Amino acid sequence: MIHDPNKVYIFDTTLRDGEQVPGCQLDTNQKIEIAKSLELLGVDVIEAGFPVSSPGDFNSVIELSKAVTNPIICALTRANKNDIDVAADALRYAKRPRIHTGIGSSDFHIKHKFNSTREEILERAVEAVRYSKKFVEDVEFYAEDAGRADIEFLAKMVEAVIAAGATVVNIPDTNGYCLPDQYGSKILYLKENVKNIDKAIISVHCHNDLGLATANSIAGLQNGARQVECTINGIGERAGNTSMEEVVMILKTHKVLGLNTQIDTTRFYEMSHMVRNQMNMPVQPNKAIVGGNAFSHSSGIHQDGFLKNRENYEIIKPEDVGFPDATIVLTARSGRHALKHHLERLGHQLEKEHLDIVYKQFLILADSKQGINDQDLNQLVALHLA
Amino acid sequence: MIHDPNKVYIFDTTLRDGEQVPGCQLDTNQKIEIAKSLELLGVDVIEAGFPVSSPGDFNSVIELSKAVTNPIICALTRANKNDIDVAADALRYAKRPRIHTGIGSSDFHIKHKFNSTREEILERAVEAVRYSKKFVEDVEFYAEDAGRADIEFLAKMVEAVIAAGATVVNIPDTNGYCLPDQYGSKILYLKENVKNIDKAIISVHCHNDLGLATANSIAGLQNGARQVECTINGIGERAGNTSMEEVVMILKTHKVLGLNTQIDTTRFYEMSHMVRNQMNMPVQPNKAIVGGNAFSHSSGIHQDGFLKNRENYEIIKPEDVGFPDATIVLTARSGRHALKHHLERLGHQLEKEHLDIVYKQFLILADSKQGINDQDLNQLVALHLA
Repeated sequence: MIHDPNKVYIFDTTLRDGEQVPGCQLDTNQKIEIAKSLELLGVDVIEAGFPVSSPGDFNSVIELSKAVTNPIICALTRANKNDIDVAADALRYAKRPRIHTGIGSSDFHIKHKFNSTREEILERAVEAVRYSKKFVEDVEFYAEDAGRADIEFLAKMVEAVIAAGATVVNIPDTNGYCLPDQYGSKILYLKENVKNIDKAIISVHCHNDLGLATANSIAGLQNGARQVECTINGIGERAGNTSMEEVVMILKTHKVLGLNTQIDTTRFYEMSHMVRNQMNMPVQPNKAIVGGNAFSHSSGIHQDGFLKNRENYEIIKPEDVGFPDATIVLTARSGRHALKHHLERLGHQLEKEHLDIVYKQFLILADSKQGINDQDLNQLVALHLA
Repeated sequence: MIHDPNKVYIFDTTLRDGEQVPGCQLDTNQKIEIAKSLELLGVDVIEAGFPVSSPGDFNSVIELSKAVTNPIICALTRANKNDIDVAADALRYAKRPRIHTGIGSSDFHIKHKFNSTREEILERAVEAVRYSKKFVEDVEFYAEDAGRADIEFLAKMVEAVIAAGATVVNIPDTNGYCLPDQYGSKILYLKENVKNIDKAIISVHCHNDLGLATANSIAGLQNGARQVECTINGIGERAGNTSMEEVVMILKTHKVLGLNTQIDTTRFYEMSHMVRNQMNMPVQPNKAIVGGNAFSHSSGIHQDGFLKNRENYEIIKPEDVGFPDATIVLTARSGRHALKHHLERLGHQLEKEHLDIVYKQFLILADSKQGINDQDLNQLVALHLA
């Protein structure tokens, strides 16, 4: 496989890590609809489920494998033969199947979750990759809780699983614990100290418990990772996963990073709405990129600057992410320029002194009422001219 | 003023930058209620409004000044005498008043917003600080759009306003444009190149347009800033401001940073609810720290580890942020351990073979139904025992 060294692979786990969230459960038809939209969006990998976990998940991986063509279809397993057997079976119709297997890598997980030793865990990791390779060529290995793992042991584990055939090594910050410089350093250490690291792609999988998932993912990419595991709207376990829309728009906005994806960003807004509706997972208005207010300018200072030149306050054009309409909203914090803009839109050209009077009346009204609409504006002008 | 070099000042702008958002407008009584809660929470500064912008805002600054005792009350202005006169007037009852004045610092803002030159802008900046000092001792200066400003000019501006008496210099990333390493470097540059920088506190004010506000604020603190401007739930213009709860919990969790705040973190959940309810601004379930799912574990792998030792998947205890209850939710992705835990909670002690049968039935039910409740569990057991 020849890789463009600057291409970042987008691994979507909305239908696995996202779908396991309370209340987010989908039936197979809904999953197919979302998977087809993810294919149009241009994601490289769709994690379709955890087949051994339930008959519904098993069936979804089968049906998603049939429904999409271009993206790799990935199925999650733990590091045991039964999980891998079931995953391989569920992937039988996939044009490009991937098994995603792995085990805990931190001493904390090794001791408290597996009641085991580093040596035994390393052996199970290698064995799981070798066994997966019997079924598929493309095997991704996750080193769970890598964020808290001893870095030398982690490097040893990564080297061993790559030697066993892993094509992708996933270094998750399972608890959302790392700071960006810490997480970036871990990826850099692996890049510099694992002898066979260039035979695999390093993947980042960050959780958002401290609000740092996006920053940690970017730090990983800056230090050599080339796959990002993420979800639409950042949904997922607890405080969620990395938001695909945030990472992709950072790469697009910051050309200096020199990285690219194949995502059609103009589909983000529609994709976000589909996921929030199907999964009943609201997106807060102040969510970056896809929140309802993401492109709304409301303060007087900002509106004034925005109307003079939108780049004063806008680094992404709403149309770049398919946002229907960037709006200036009038409130008691709006300035004269914003009021003038809306009055002119409604056909009222006012001289400065008239505008001053209407503006004063507008402020009184706006202090007593949330959100001033076109009818209010027409009435203000009518009262003034009367 | 003697500062603890490791203390981070928490500057809350929920009632100014947050309140200007469409639909978030509050009346004065609501603002007083929130301000009193912010005082109990332990914030150092409350930005109470932008007095010149409307009569309601002017009045709110007056009433908040009367209502709270410990926090500094701060009023926003642009760099002109009228704004400053009005702010000083509004602050007349404040026990600890601060005027927050400033002007654009990027060439983009200087040219497209002010149609001016660097020299003229520098003069206006210094003049605004000098004029503010006639009314109050504590003057904060904001260098708007500092994220895109020429760093040498920014340093010159910061040095000049400190010489003119500014006690705090705010370096906003107005557009949410910077990457954490870029923003951190700017703060470090100022710390190392502005001769009189130790006479003022550097403040970070980051916007979340790319999902990086929290990471950028932390990068600023790591490089010498000691005040964070933030809001509850991260509300604010467009994609919002830095979330106070995220920054404070990062400082608390990462002792290695060696920084502290005076925030009573056990009040975060209640504070978050008050703001979401009063301002009609929903918080998405996957919001870090205060979202409804922030401490919910749902996948089988995670639940199993969580039940063995909660630190497997939990870096913050829910009670540290006043979260009412950390829940294990049963879905089709839940494992045997989670089911067993809930059955035992309900008084059902099942042998392994019986548990296996009930678990199979449970998975079928969970695939067809969102969220399994106690009644469902009792019924499953009753059917099995029948």
